[in-house]
Amino acid sequence: MTIKNDLILRAARGEKTERTPVWLMRQAGRVLPEYREVRSKMGGFKELVETPEFACEVTIQPVDVLGVDAAIIFSDILVIPEAMGLPYQMLEAKGPWFEKTIKTENDITQLRIAQSHDLHYVMDAIKLAKKELNGRVPLIGFAGAPWTIFAYMIEGSGSKTFSKAKKFLYTQPELSHQLLQKITDSTINYLKGQITAGADMLQLFDSWAGVLSHEQYKEFSLKYISQICDAIKDVPFTVFAKDAHSSRREMGKLNCDTIGLDWTMDIPESREMIGSTKTLQGNMDPCLLYASYATIKSETIKMLRAFGPDRHIANLGHGLYPDLEKEKVKYFVDTIKEFRF
Amino acid sequence: MTIKNDLILRAARGEKTERTPVWLMRQAGRVLPEYREVRSKMGGFKELVETPEFACEVTIQPVDVLGVDAAIIFSDILVIPEAMGLPYQMLEAKGPWFEKTIKTENDITQLRIAQSHDLHYVMDAIKLAKKELNGRVPLIGFAGAPWTIFAYMIEGSGSKTFSKAKKFLYTQPELSHQLLQKITDSTINYLKGQITAGADMLQLFDSWAGVLSHEQYKEFSLKYISQICDAIKDVPFTVFAKDAHSSRREMGKLNCDTIGLDWTMDIPESREMIGSTKTLQGNMDPCLLYASYATIKSETIKMLRAFGPDRHIANLGHGLYPDLEKEKVKYFVDTIKEFRF
Repeated sequence: MTIKNDLILRAARGEKTERTPVWLMRQAGRVLPEYREVRSKMGGFKELVETPEFACEVTIQPVDVLGVDAAIIFSDILVIPEAMGLPYQMLEAKGPWFEKTIKTENDITQLRIAQSHDLHYVMDAIKLAKKELNGRVPLIGFAGAPWTIFAYMIEGSGSKTFSKAKKFLYTQPELSHQLLQKITDSTINYLKGQITAGADMLQLFDSWAGVLSHEQYKEFSLKYISQICDAIKDVPFTVFAKDAHSSRREMGKLNCDTIGLDWTMDIPESREMIGSTKTLQGNMDPCLLYASYATIKSETIKMLRAFGPDRHIANLGHGLYPDLEKEKVKYFVDTIKEFRF
Repeated sequence: MTIKNDLILRAARGEKTERTPVWLMRQAGRVLPEYREVRSKMGGFKELVETPEFACEVTIQPVDVLGVDAAIIFSDILVIPEAMGLPYQMLEAKGPWFEKTIKTENDITQLRIAQSHDLHYVMDAIKLAKKELNGRVPLIGFAGAPWTIFAYMIEGSGSKTFSKAKKFLYTQPELSHQLLQKITDSTINYLKGQITAGADMLQLFDSWAGVLSHEQYKEFSLKYISQICDAIKDVPFTVFAKDAHSSRREMGKLNCDTIGLDWTMDIPESREMIGSTKTLQGNMDPCLLYASYATIKSETIKMLRAFGPDRHIANLGHGLYPDLEKEKVKYFVDTIKEFRF
């Protein structure tokens, strides 16, 4: 099926676009009253993720309501540990929580390599969303990067320091590599399944890149991200490693199309470090959307000029915060869509 | 009084030292059974901070037990908001909590500029510790950087994103500057009082530097850090801004002696950005101290070589974690003290 608005795909491939495309991380979520309405009908976040009809519905909402240039499938990075054998709960106000965590070699041996059919509900949601979108905009699929998934599997929940997960890296480097390889193999199967189901573009989220030293990031994260980049060939691929300041030069050498930047990364410095062969994505501070309309406009235009007209996909530098006003989020999107160099 | 071991002071001033000096952030704390014993006699963390005899005792412990080259006064960065009129509690497992936070101009108007006598218990603890140390090693005093203090005064507690505090910056920039100036004036009074009481060296902690964009960090943090640096003349001064990757060039221009690095900052890159006129402090990953003795040794020596023999004060890249083993912490210190270039 031809995609009518393929701005994002063209920007990812480094082709000229008539304007900068835009989508938002966590655009399908609590910022939209439309989402909260669907959500209130469900038992919880996971039920929403696991019910393709509802996941599809909230995936499409931001395209209708905010006018973004891509949809992203409504899902969660932690479906992978669950498919490998570690179920989790999403606790209100506390976030993800795993009853069982990885402690020993035996725990790792018992994990399955996930296959795409283990995550049939995601594949079904993608198929449904593709049908519903009817070629209006591309659909983005995604997964967590192996280090971030590993961190949750060891730690069992979110953490300020992820010191348990890092302790495992320092004390059990060989087991760490075993586990990371299993996660990587599962993630490749999962992402290939998403392409088969219809995803037009993929993104890898390394949310906890920022707790690792440069050396550890290369050894325990980039090595596996690189395997995934090499395995995904058919659609544009984005790597977003939050707070990975020190590894931007290495990220410029990954076999992928786009590198996501968070809002603490300087734009010209990042371009210099990453090089000219990648599209950059980002990187407005989500908190800007608390500001006045005038400030949102001027700061957004400043960001667009800093990135320049080519090889840029506009986005925030992290996900939307739930208490942002929908009108201001839409104003950010509109400002980008109206701007011409 | 002459200080017998003045390695740290000499390293801060850029003088040659016979070996690299070392101290640890949060060295006076739960890692030491000796600390936990004193702590168990007290009602809570704040009572310990506010009782000069006990604060002095736990300040000296790491010098005796770990053999570090400096003591740091046992206190808390949040004594400043309290002295300005915002009391706080330290909740077990949850961290700091303020009943009243800053919301309006009137809230800011009502705040006092703290004077050093408002924090007489810190001054008394410094005097006592100086007496007890009897010139063995220098005593470090400290304060929070204005942005970090501001973040707690608006947010009222710790936070993953400090989005309330950042919202205040975006929506109330003028009030933000008013509040930051009051905190800065209070901090200068406080630090000057610490020098008068006997502190041999001072450090500013900007713990939440990492949530701000480069532009906001310059406008709302570095501007005030710079005022403090200019006001402190009589003792070596260190600025440690965790995760402030993008602002290292500007930090190299501050009127201070030493810049602290966290473990995610690449050492040669930081030296290049900060320049050769500053001493660098840091920057081992605290989690390294979970590793085997052999790994601790080899990684520590690798770090020492990366910094080189001059203008380096060895430390971790963040505070000690409470569950680290005292023996391994001491081994890290010993490895540094035994190493010769």
